[in-house]
Amino acid sequence: MIKDFMHESLEEAKRSLFLNEVPVGAVIVKDNKIIARAHNLRETLQDATAHAEILAIKKACDLLGTWRLTGCDMYVTLEPCPMCAGAILQSRISKLYIGIFDPSVGACGSVINLIQNDALNHWTEINWLYNAECGNLLTNFFKDKR
Amino acid sequence: MIKDFMHESLEEAKRSLFLNEVPVGAVIVKDNKIIARAHNLRETLQDATAHAEILAIKKACDLLGTWRLTGCDMYVTLEPCPMCAGAILQSRISKLYIGIFDPSVGACGSVINLIQNDALNHWTEINWLYNAECGNLLTNFFKDKR
Repeated sequence: MIKDFMHESLEEAKRSLFLNEVPVGAVIVKDNKIIARAHNLRETLQDATAHAEILAIKKACDLLGTWRLTGCDMYVTLEPCPMCAGAILQSRISKLYIGIFDPSVGACGSVINLIQNDALNHWTEINWLYNAECGNLLTNFFKDKR
Repeated sequence: MIKDFMHESLEEAKRSLFLNEVPVGAVIVKDNKIIARAHNLRETLQDATAHAEILAIKKACDLLGTWRLTGCDMYVTLEPCPMCAGAILQSRISKLYIGIFDPSVGACGSVINLIQNDALNHWTEINWLYNAECGNLLTNFFKDKR
């Protein structure tokens, strides 16, 4: 099941790619069902907050009619940045499954750890999947840009 | 001028209060003019991301037609949380004016510092205004809740 949800997250990331956006995708799962899915739309929407994770959280809140996503899990292809890690804390998402780490701005342990930080008011389980496809998608995107 | 912009930010915070929301307000200023203003709407919208700062950033991006808010300053009544501090970094806001610190989840120095962190990819100027009214608004709100 974990593999299937990360596959769906990757499918979302590929949609970013078609829009010439940095390919990152996220899905939110509750009771073994995907309730929200999104991909990075920063350039398309010209909105600094339009990362896959933020868009998926907004959709899940809208669907469930609550800002509390307790009992929901997020599958994301790339380690969340500080903004998205902060949104994951704010929304009380229970478990986080991450495709690949982000050594530049990863806020789940690579550069800083907001998700598991006793000084902050919430703590989320992190599961690293080390999914090569998530990384290759990004590597190839930036290679093509050069 | 700084005092006037913080006053407007406080006026926004008071609007949250009327909605029984934690009273936090933010305005974004460019070329000495307010281009976006927002207040906390988390409960009203049931959206975990609907903090004043995020809503103001989205409005400013929309108005300017770009996700890059370089040259824009934000005035916010309360020290931003990790999500909002991350959004300030993402949007490249140039200067941040903060009314009062947040000892529970403040991410501009109180609990953690994301805004001025050499490990991250952006750095924003912070100006602390130590505005008592910003704090009193919050203290009275939580006192009434008890």
